[in-house]
Formats: sequence, structure tokens, C-alpha cells
Amino acid sequence: MLHKPDVTQRLARFIVETRWDDIPSPVRHQAKRSLMNFFAVALAGCRSGPVETALRSLAEFSGGRRATLVGRAERIDALSAAFLNAAGANVHDFCDTQLRTVIHPTAPVAPALLALAELRRVSGPDLLLAFILGNEVQARIGLAISPSHYSKGWHITSTCGVFGAAAGSGKLLALDEQRMVWALGNASTQSSGLCECLGTPAKSVSVGNAARNGLWSALLAEQGFDGPPEPLAGVQGFYNAMGETPDLSLITDGLGESWEIMATSYKPYPCGFVIHPVLDCVLDWRRGNPDVEVTRVVVRGNPLLSDRTDRPDISTGRESQVSVQHAVAAALVTGKAGIDQFTDASVRDPKVLAMWSKVEVVRDPALSTIAAAVEITIADGKTQRLSQSAARGSDVNPLSDTDLEEKLRSAAAGWNPRHDVAPLIDEVWALDNSPDVSTLASLAVPKG
Amino acid sequence: MLHKPDVTQRLARFIVETRWDDIPSPVRHQAKRSLMNFFAVALAGCRSGPVETALRSLAEFSGGRRATLVGRAERIDALSAAFLNAAGANVHDFCDTQLRTVIHPTAPVAPALLALAELRRVSGPDLLLAFILGNEVQARIGLAISPSHYSKGWHITSTCGVFGAAAGSGKLLALDEQRMVWALGNASTQSSGLCECLGTPAKSVSVGNAARNGLWSALLAEQGFDGPPEPLAGVQGFYNAMGETPDLSLITDGLGESWEIMATSYKPYPCGFVIHPVLDCVLDWRRGNPDVEVTRVVVRGNPLLSDRTDRPDISTGRESQVSVQHAVAAALVTGKAGIDQFTDASVRDPKVLAMWSKVEVVRDPALSTIAAAVEITIADGKTQRLSQSAARGSDVNPLSDTDLEEKLRSAAAGWNPRHDVAPLIDEVWALDNSPDVSTLASLAVPKG
Repeated sequence: MLHKPDVTQRLARFIVETRWDDIPSPVRHQAKRSLMNFFAVALAGCRSGPVETALRSLAEFSGGRRATLVGRAERIDALSAAFLNAAGANVHDFCDTQLRTVIHPTAPVAPALLALAELRRVSGPDLLLAFILGNEVQARIGLAISPSHYSKGWHITSTCGVFGAAAGSGKLLALDEQRMVWALGNASTQSSGLCECLGTPAKSVSVGNAARNGLWSALLAEQGFDGPPEPLAGVQGFYNAMGETPDLSLITDGLGESWEIMATSYKPYPCGFVIHPVLDCVLDWRRGNPDVEVTRVVVRGNPLLSDRTDRPDISTGRESQVSVQHAVAAALVTGKAGIDQFTDASVRDPKVLAMWSKVEVVRDPALSTIAAAVEITIADGKTQRLSQSAARGSDVNPLSDTDLEEKLRSAAAGWNPRHDVAPLIDEVWALDNSPDVSTLASLAVPKG
Repeated sequence: MLHKPDVTQRLARFIVETRWDDIPSPVRHQAKRSLMNFFAVALAGCRSGPVETALRSLAEFSGGRRATLVGRAERIDALSAAFLNAAGANVHDFCDTQLRTVIHPTAPVAPALLALAELRRVSGPDLLLAFILGNEVQARIGLAISPSHYSKGWHITSTCGVFGAAAGSGKLLALDEQRMVWALGNASTQSSGLCECLGTPAKSVSVGNAARNGLWSALLAEQGFDGPPEPLAGVQGFYNAMGETPDLSLITDGLGESWEIMATSYKPYPCGFVIHPVLDCVLDWRRGNPDVEVTRVVVRGNPLLSDRTDRPDISTGRESQVSVQHAVAAALVTGKAGIDQFTDASVRDPKVLAMWSKVEVVRDPALSTIAAAVEITIADGKTQRLSQSAARGSDVNPLSDTDLEEKLRSAAAGWNPRHDVAPLIDEVWALDNSPDVSTLASLAVPKG
């Protein structure tokens, strides 16, 4: 392992010294897109089982000044709000992704900052800057140990997200360089989360903790709660414990010159990203052929598609998110691939079930993970061929701003058709000029 | 790695099925000794800087039914009380130790159970049984990955303590086998803590979290918050991520037949255990030679003594806990080796400083880590030789019950000489017959 004993300090200095004026315009806009997507996925997940249970539990211990829960009338202390909004944003695996690390970058960071913005005065540019820096810090910390960290079983969104939440929160608190190192140190010793828990509510515990504990790490550091000088690259630090062969140059090279947030993907469908190019093909075809009976579907995709999602027999909505058979079947039957197509009810729909066995997966190493080819055979025996070279929502075929707005509208309407999210959408796009974002999260709560 | 895909379930079944009648009498008594030692070290640490800062921060977010903080009049929610009592108990490294793993077993477990005993009705035998089981679970989980886990940088008290707190809390909540697996799963994804933070306040974050998050893991599981079936030995579970070559047979072999709590060591001095046999010699000599000027001290010890504690030049109380030069100097100057000998003030005492350079450390592989030989040369040039084959407090030369009582009395008097701890001492020894322990912790709070 290459020791750079000042890597934490260099990150801290970068966070402390970077100003709003240093952020290029496309990066600022991308940050707003990430927040738009965040509110969409947080609304989609705000009444899911894990959020309901965790809220009921945390409320028993909560007090003091209350912060907002996306999509809900209840209010709760800022640490718990950060936990619950992060858990909700990530629960359906519908949130944004940095594909090189598989980090879902916004779920741990945005909730920490929004909660803090209800405790301290924060402007729109303050919020965007802190968000961009939190994103950058966690992405770079993750890049330095990818892909071995994730493949060893670490849920990288959680393990690195706690640093992003600490960095962004520390920026909002205007910590000095020394205290920023302490904030990252407090985060390092709370870094946790196992992939074994994916697909179960327990996943939400580590994602929620990333936001909560990152925020708390910064608040403790503000109070002078100190830690080691090099929590990341120290001999017994984060990288020695959690990374096999870290490349620390990926943390510091080009810091402030390139911005990882530009590589963010936003999902149009709440399921595994490798299934997305398949759904692009199937939904396109289905739009032109709404009432045609399908007898067979052959899906060609990168081997990862087969490895992760060739699951023709499942029993829960959560499992359905990683079953290409189910995704294709539900899309063909309903013409959609939204939250409702990946529920327990959807996997019990007889029409969908009848279609599962008609979907076959073929491995094709020539296809990238964002590409797919689909052959659909219909009742008269004819076969139609479709293909997608770059899935919608990937960084090379991004969702448009309008797509993201629509994703938010659709998620809000799923819980409460009368929830008018136009003010929220307007406010997100206007964040550069907002003097105070303390009420931003409350626009994501239906009135009355 | 040897996969035993039912190791979590077997642990869960053990926790659920074990009854008070199954616990041998010496194990019951040892549990009471551990609790006596816990109250001593928690009183010693209850007003330390990390506890003060964390309390101030957590109080802003706390509400609901309040639980007791050892040694303090403030009350706070049960999760935060678990955090703070654990952090305080461990802050001076004065707590008990399972030497084979270097786990400090009581700090994460007892605070979770005491907090829970203020939320639900818990009898003395319930408390002792849950405590013994929590101890056993974390010890065995730790044994299976020792020593590689610790040497990779994991603070094993924190990483394994969260399982002990979850197991013990789950027992008090009378979880069934399935829910106990979920409790351990919720704990697995919160397991964290880095040795890089040792010697700084950041250490207290992971120790506090072990208690808090273990308790919360069990409360969530009680509410049906589910997780994976095999969080420990699953392909992407705890052992794959955090253990290099785990021996899972150490978890399950002889479960319920032997009890790891019997191997607990209790410290007479608040410093690194390898220094203890040295202090036994020096303090013994000093008692018989109170006013003799010492010109040179040669300390022979296991190479670990030299590796970890040969630090002739330090500047903080925390560092002094791992400096054999300081420990010997302070013991010679004051005749004691208590909390007051390992403070910032003590490392500025001119008499102590003058002695540091007179202490020399010699490596001797023939000596075990609990043995030492000391040569003290006095002003007239005479040299006296002393030796200790098994340090006081080690499992082969245990502190007596009376020693533990005295340790508690001394710690309480350090903060408040009028704190009468006799009722607390009596209550701990009488726990087998207590119908309700909800007020036990409050006996560790000075009246008025």
C-alpha cells in the first residue's frame, strides 16, 4: 500500500478552500439535477416499510428542534431526519449512481445537508457547494478502493457515504482545516455497511447511518471533538482495514479540476441498472404494440445481466428489482416500469407470472453493461429485433431535465395525487439565487 | 474460508434457548464482578471530555422517556444513554479485557442492557443472563477472527461489541430465533471502529455506537425489521468483509458448555495491560521505600512492552497510558497508579518528568505479557530486584471481590467524595434476587 500520510489533510484543505465561484456552471446544474432526482426517489420511498418502522422506533427517542421528513407530515430531530430521508431515498434502489464505484452518491449526502439547513442558516449556493464537495469526497474515497472494496462485501454507498455527509456538513458548518480532518476521522470510525444486507430492510440501516453519522461527525468536530491526523491512510486507518490495494492518487490527483458528479447516472426505472437497456427496448416496442400477444423474449446482455438478474422465479417486490424476467414481463403486461411494477403485488399478478418463463437470458461479452439486444416473438411466430447501445439515464445518454421533473411528479403522485410539486421543482432550479433553503425540504411535504 | 451458512442461526438459537438455570454459579458471580468493574470505570470516565462533548451534542436531539447516565444528574433518551455510558466506561482504557481477543467486553453490552432496563421491566437474573450471553456472543465472534482482525486496524471492542449489545438486548426483549437473527443482521451492518482512532476522543464514537447501535438493532428486530439469514458467514457478510481467515468453529464449538466471561481480566491501573506487571513491582517496592531517591530503573518485559510502551517523551494524559516510562515515574513519585497518575496534569509534573529519562526498557522474549522484572537503583548505588510472574488483575491472578469494590469506591470518590456507593455495591452482589433492576443505574448517580 502506498502511504500518503497527508491524504486526509489534503481533502480537508480542498473542502475548506473551495468556494462557490470555483464551481463551473455545468457542475452547479448537475448538482440541481441530482437534488431533483433525490426528491423524486425520496418521495417514492418515504412510506416504505423500513422507513415506517425506523421512524416509529426513532420517534421514541427524539426531541429538540424538529426537521422535515420528505413526503411526510411528521417531524423529527435532525439526526433522525437525515437517517430516514437517506433510507427512504435509497430503499427502492431508484437513486442516482456513480457507475465506476456503484456508489449511490446523493442518498447519504443530501439528507444530512437538508437537515442541517433547518438548524443553521444556509443559502442555495452554500447548499449546492457543500453537496458538490460531499459528492466529490465520497466518490474519490471510493474510487481509490474500487472495485475490490465492493466485491469484498462492503456496501460502498454506506461506507463512503458517511465521509460525503461529513464533508458536506463540515462545509456548511464552516469548519477549519483541522476540524475538517476531525470530522472525517469521526466518520472513518463509523464507516460500515455490508452487501449481504442488500435486498432486505437491513440495507436501509447502513444507508441511513451514513447520513446521520456523517452529519454527527461534523457536529462533533465543530465542538472540538478530535481524532487522529490521518484516519484514511494511517497505518490502522480506513484504507488498511477496508481496502485491499488502494490507489490513493485517485483521491488527490486533479482535485478541484474534474468533478465526479458529472459522471452521475439517474435511473428511469427502479431496478438494477443492468436491466435498464433491456427495458428501453421492451417499453419502446410495447408502445407501438400495445395489444400484441408475446410468446417468447430472448434478452442478450453483458454477462453481468445474467449473473445478477437471471431470476425466473421470485416471490417479493424487492427480489423483482433484480429479476430481468420479471422486469420484462411486467413491462410487457403493463407498458410501464415504475414503482408499481416492482412490488409484492406485481409479483403475484397472474398475467406477469405467466410471462416469466417466456423470458430467456443470453450472455454476450461483446455488449457493455449499458447495452442490450432483445428479440420478441409474437403469437403469429414473427420475431422482432430491438437494441439499445447506451441505456437511458446512463451518463452518455442522460435523462433530460424534463425527464427528472417528470420522475419527481410521478413519484409524488404515487402517494398523493394532490401533492403539487411545482413549487419544489421551481425552487430546485432556482437554488443558485436562494438566500435561505430552510424551507426547501418542506416543499416535498404535501399540504394539509 | 470455511462456510457454515447457519452460524448466525445457531448463535441466535443459543441466545433464545439459554435459561438462567443453565448458567453455572461461578459464571453468575463473574458477571456481577464485571458489572462492579463496569460501574467503577464508568464512574471514572463519566466526566471526561469526550463524554461531556457527546452529551452536549446528543442532548439537542434527544427526547422521550429518559434513562440514567452513570455518575451524572442529567438524563437522556435510552439510545444516547447507552452511547454515553459505553463511551465513558471505555474512555480511560480502564475497563475489563478478554485477553485472547483484546475485546473490552462489558463497555458495549452493559450500557445497552441498563438503558433497556429503564424502558422494560427486567429482573436481576434477566439482566445477568442477557449480559452473560451478550458477552459470550461477542467474544466468540471475535475469537473467530483473532488476531488478524485487530492487527488489520479494526477496533475489535467496537466491531464485535455491537453484536454483544444486540444479543443481550434481544434476550431482554425475548426475541424469537428469527428476530434474533435479524437483530444480529442489523448489528452486522453497523459494525465499525478503527484502531487508528485509539488515543483520541474519536475512539469513543465507535465504542458508544457499539452499545447504541446494538440496542437499536434489537429494538428494530422486535418491530419486524428484517435482514439476511446469514449476516455473519454469508458470502458478502461480516466475516468475508472484515476477517481474513476466520475459524467459524470457534463460534459454535462448545457453545453453552464453556463461558468466555470466566477469562475476563480486570485492570487495577488505567493504562496498557503490558505495563501492569511492571507497576505491581514498582508500587510494592515504593510502599516499603516511600522516601528513597531513585536514580535508575531497568524494566525487563515481553517485547510487546517495548513495542507498545517504550515512550520516554509524551505530552498528554492519553499518551501517558501507553508510556511505561511515565507509569513507572508517576508511581515512584506519588506511590499510586490511578486515574490521577495518567492525566495531562500528571505529564506536566516536574518531579515525574525528571524521572522519565531514568527508566530504561529491555526486551526479554522469555517473559510473558503479564510478567516483568524490575531493577531499581537508589541514590547510594544499591540495586534491588523485583519480579512479577502474573500481573494482578490477569485471569490467573485475579482482583478479589474486595479489590473491585475498592476500585469502584475510589472511582466514585474521584468525582464526588460524598457519593455513597455502598447501596450500589450491595445491589450488584444481590442481583440474583432482584425482581426489578430499573433503578440499578441510578445508584451510580450521586444524590442531591
